Amino acid sequence: MKEYLENVRRQAPLIHNITNYVTANDVANVLLAVGASPIMADEPDEAAEITSHCRGLHINLGTLHLRTIRAMLLAGRKAKELGHAILLDPVGVGASSLRRDTAISLMEEIRFDVIRGNVSELKALAGGTASTGGVDADAADAVTEENLDRMTAFAKRYSAACHAIVAITGAIDLVADEDRCFVIRNGCPEMSRVTGTGCQLSGLMTAFVSANPDHKLEASAAAVILMGLAGEIGVRHLQPGEGNATLRTRMIDAIYNMTGERLEREANYDIR
Amino acid sequence: MKEYLENVRRQAPLIHNITNYVTANDVANVLLAVGASPIMADEPDEAAEITSHCRGLHINLGTLHLRTIRAMLLAGRKAKELGHAILLDPVGVGASSLRRDTAISLMEEIRFDVIRGNVSELKALAGGTASTGGVDADAADAVTEENLDRMTAFAKRYSAACHAIVAITGAIDLVADEDRCFVIRNGCPEMSRVTGTGCQLSGLMTAFVSANPDHKLEASAAAVILMGLAGEIGVRHLQPGEGNATLRTRMIDAIYNMTGERLEREANYDIR
Amino acid sequence: MKEYLENVRRQAPLIHNITNYVTANDVANVLLAVGASPIMADEPDEAAEITSHCRGLHINLGTLHLRTIRAMLLAGRKAKELGHAILLDPVGVGASSLRRDTAISLMEEIRFDVIRGNVSELKALAGGTASTGGVDADAADAVTEENLDRMTAFAKRYSAACHAIVAITGAIDLVADEDRCFVIRNGCPEMSRVTGTGCQLSGLMTAFVSANPDHKLEASAAAVILMGLAGEIGVRHLQPGEGNATLRTRMIDAIYNMTGERLEREANYDIR
Repeated sequence: MKEYLENVRRQAPLIHNITNYVTANDVANVLLAVGASPIMADEPDEAAEITSHCRGLHINLGTLHLRTIRAMLLAGRKAKELGHAILLDPVGVGASSLRRDTAISLMEEIRFDVIRGNVSELKALAGGTASTGGVDADAADAVTEENLDRMTAFAKRYSAACHAIVAITGAIDLVADEDRCFVIRNGCPEMSRVTGTGCQLSGLMTAFVSANPDHKLEASAAAVILMGLAGEIGVRHLQPGEGNATLRTRMIDAIYNMTGERLEREANYDIR
Repeated sequence: MKEYLENVRRQAPLIHNITNYVTANDVANVLLAVGASPIMADEPDEAAEITSHCRGLHINLGTLHLRTIRAMLLAGRKAKELGHAILLDPVGVGASSLRRDTAISLMEEIRFDVIRGNVSELKALAGGTASTGGVDADAADAVTEENLDRMTAFAKRYSAACHAIVAITGAIDLVADEDRCFVIRNGCPEMSRVTGTGCQLSGLMTAFVSANPDHKLEASAAAVILMGLAGEIGVRHLQPGEGNATLRTRMIDAIYNMTGERLEREANYDIR
Repeated sequence: MKEYLENVRRQAPLIHNITNYVTANDVANVLLAVGASPIMADEPDEAAEITSHCRGLHINLGTLHLRTIRAMLLAGRKAKELGHAILLDPVGVGASSLRRDTAISLMEEIRFDVIRGNVSELKALAGGTASTGGVDADAADAVTEENLDRMTAFAKRYSAACHAIVAITGAIDLVADEDRCFVIRNGCPEMSRVTGTGCQLSGLMTAFVSANPDHKLEASAAAVILMGLAGEIGVRHLQPGEGNATLRTRMIDAIYNMTGERLEREANYDIR
């Protein structure tokens, strides 16, 4: 996993984020922490031009607006044309038809390299995508040791159906293409009490895939492991009286200080 | 006060926030700290649908836009129809006619459970609301020991006029319905040097009222006490060289770690 | 430098920020830290009215929208009419024609007191402004000891051309009017790993110029020195395992705790 992080540090890719205003600051700081550079821009009039200066595009459906949807499409087309790494984070896609319709039309228009969400988002997406109808039939509400075979099979099938790496994050994280699935056991439950850890991970994954174009699956898994490790380190150092706000800071700090060696050594995963 | 916090923790209500982009991250993290769940969404095309999945709606006039005003109305109507807890935070309502007109039309359209602001916001609101004309005559510029009788009477009268719990927060906090007024002396002056403590409190109050529908006044007061205690704990633990940015983190941490027993024990209020 | 900070603390100017959603929270907290007050509002329908209650206006092109451009123009005209301090932060002005065109039309319409950016932003601005064509010919890609004479000359010439104080921030900071240039050596490289330190500085400079109308150049320099010192103090206190997220907090804390004496004593600059 070492080299994927080091490639990000060495190349310092500029990542265009069209993302929600709730967690944009954390996404920017986590990209700076890992050694990449962030730019946020969601005005249709400049979206394609901005993305042309970048190496990767992170599209995130949180606090979606009609205006930003147009920016997503314009930036997505340009990024695709230029061969940039493109990631979709379908935040809350099950919560409104606007988000579902937007996700589907983006997926039809743009070939994403990675789609990352939690299990309910990925289920909603798989169930709502015409071209992949039925693929969600086997998806459970959470990835557990008991349903792991079923869920890795779902991740691989959905990856094949949408031609993208599929990352399902939660207590156990899955990162799959149609052939292989990384099953990752880094991370800790306290991370879910910090807003935006998913958005931050989406930013990181975009940077990792941008900097490792020949190993997109492995680089995606490395980003997920990195985020999980950051959570573990953050929780381990919490003092009495500290809580989720301190953890938010510590996780970004842990990414800032992460070395390739430590990532390699503390990574906890297998491939199925 | 214990049970009101514990009901939030047990029920983990999902709260829809239509709020400003300055403090949205803190509102999300404070809701996670108290055990509730946040969702932010302000696009008119999805506002009603999003709110239908929630238990409470927090409408905040900071960084108001014409677009978000429509989302507020659509979400507010749906939330009212579904019997959700609804709170209005009239940020800066005295600073522009757009905010004043928006507050008034929202209040005419939606019956809020709670209206929370500082004394100048509540005065501006009371003075500008046709149906409550004159109710602000007795309002001072700050709640002090000297004008406490006058201000509790103002809070009760304004509550009766707008059919909502009225919370006026400052050095002394008042939380009133038409009959009773909680006079709360938790908190500390340093809190005013952290942006968004009012917005955070509005998020918390929405969660408390959502989880305690039969004790809305008491639950509102409990949320105000919790925020004040968080400020006290945060300031007490500041080290030399630390300032408002550390305090921001410590306050959310204090809410994360708050127990019902401690809330009960350190609450400092009387009822008039 | 002492008195410029103390004037901010004494007068507590209210600053209107039309700025990006990525760093708005930090801009608000840094203004509170220094003793000023922030308000964020970018809806054209209220922009002029909001600014009329303030003392200074900070216009920042990050996450620019067509809607906010109109707010910038309306607020800018009103602020100019009222004699407020007005600052332009041309974030990413070289990255899109929308940002370049917006900066140019704002500069034609509004006479800014201060224009602050990094060297590439200032070069793009100088190169793209019709009325200052050619002024960028001598601008290098970074201010270094080697090109210092050339760059101070560029800053002075560009200041003369656009009738504003020009602040070019980086490893060495330049703050110039047409006659004098402060060359400031406070700060440290780690600051570039925290998102929004430039936006925060722009907020601070607006407050300093607002509170020191008779010494705009010196007050601008004082704000740049303050931000640089905050970075130095923040980095000096970093513990093992801490990184850019902790530094973000520590810098704002350092501004909260800064005294006039310390600012005076640790300022590191000369005037050319």
